[in-house]
Amino acid sequence: MALSEVKALTFDVFGTVVNWRDSIAREAKSLLGPKGYDKDWHSFADRWRARYQPAMEKVRKGERPWAKLDDLHRENLIELLKEFEVANLSGSEIDHLNRAWHRLGPWPDSVEGLTRLKRKFILATLSNGNVALMVNMAKYAGLPWDVILGAEVAHAYKPQPEAYDRSVALLDLKPEQCMMVAAHNNDLLAAHSRGLRTAFVSRPLEHGPNKSRDLQPEHDFDVVADNFVDLAAKLGC
Amino acid sequence: MALSEVKALTFDVFGTVVNWRDSIAREAKSLLGPKGYDKDWHSFADRWRARYQPAMEKVRKGERPWAKLDDLHRENLIELLKEFEVANLSGSEIDHLNRAWHRLGPWPDSVEGLTRLKRKFILATLSNGNVALMVNMAKYAGLPWDVILGAEVAHAYKPQPEAYDRSVALLDLKPEQCMMVAAHNNDLLAAHSRGLRTAFVSRPLEHGPNKSRDLQPEHDFDVVADNFVDLAAKLGC
Repeated sequence: MALSEVKALTFDVFGTVVNWRDSIAREAKSLLGPKGYDKDWHSFADRWRARYQPAMEKVRKGERPWAKLDDLHRENLIELLKEFEVANLSGSEIDHLNRAWHRLGPWPDSVEGLTRLKRKFILATLSNGNVALMVNMAKYAGLPWDVILGAEVAHAYKPQPEAYDRSVALLDLKPEQCMMVAAHNNDLLAAHSRGLRTAFVSRPLEHGPNKSRDLQPEHDFDVVADNFVDLAAKLGC
Repeated sequence: MALSEVKALTFDVFGTVVNWRDSIAREAKSLLGPKGYDKDWHSFADRWRARYQPAMEKVRKGERPWAKLDDLHRENLIELLKEFEVANLSGSEIDHLNRAWHRLGPWPDSVEGLTRLKRKFILATLSNGNVALMVNMAKYAGLPWDVILGAEVAHAYKPQPEAYDRSVALLDLKPEQCMMVAAHNNDLLAAHSRGLRTAFVSRPLEHGPNKSRDLQPEHDFDVVADNFVDLAAKLGC
């Protein structure tokens, strides 16, 4: 493995860099608790996230025109609020709750690990989140990205090949000069199929105590790390 | 002027953030001097830059398909080498010299000013440089951008309206929540016409001792600053 030629690390973000489940539960409780709602807020987060892939799949299949993730999240939130029997939110309250995805907290090792990795590599997001979401999250969570790439600039949702190809092209690098970092086997497999190097980072708590997938790397990835500090060490940073 | 609503600063880069003229002269001398060429290297830089606007204009007018700035720079360099009677460079030497635009040095106040501004604002490039050029320059010069926007992601060269509009849209902000920072009157006028706020920063040495344009702000911009540290102070950072 000639990892020495890697110039850029491209990161999955939701679940890999930030803890979306606890963050969304916290934000939902913060807005809706004072209104008298007493729900299982982690279940609220899980059910919101469950609508994520189906919404993107309609875009991938061409069943609807391009829509950025903020818009898909908001449509899903409207349905979710019905499911949880939450009513009478104003438009601006719904917007604020929707932008909870801009205020996700990092895993404890994320900022330290990224800061070390940034000394040696270009750090790029390669997320399905839109640009504003990624930028605002970075300001909130202190994530030191060099460049925001991914779905919105590529106009394609992972694991579509164009999401990887166009992000790599914007960096003017060869695929093998980029390493995809993710906690999800399917994302890494798709990146590998486009020629990128791969690093699996374990995030066993992504789905709370109930995580049943992606607990282990299921393929022969270039690097397997316990967290971002471990990844930095394994990449010589 | 309600500048308190400004969330993001969008930056012109060549000339405003980095000193392209001295940097290109240094790089050209470094590569071509040891080959026995003794030229006026600042003139070499000036003549390369003189081909910049005409090359983009062909794209703006639709006389050729979209081409990123690295490709325009390289075409211009081929002609420039003929003009300066420099011959027998290999393809990789030409590539290396072309990527001198990725290795431009900042003005003395740029990094300190940007670092202060970053605490309060989203810092976005809104340059005609392509993404890889901007990312590599940021790593080289230590420029702490939050996000790389501008021509390549907008698929339009400033001062075309789409360059500003699409960059603002990617941030999911209103135009008046963005402030264009530039050392060039025409860039700021174009940004103003799209609804952005404007900050003029003086860069009297951009063209060496011969600068004849943009020595002063020629319009009623929102902020006028002597340099980036002064800009930070004037924006309360």
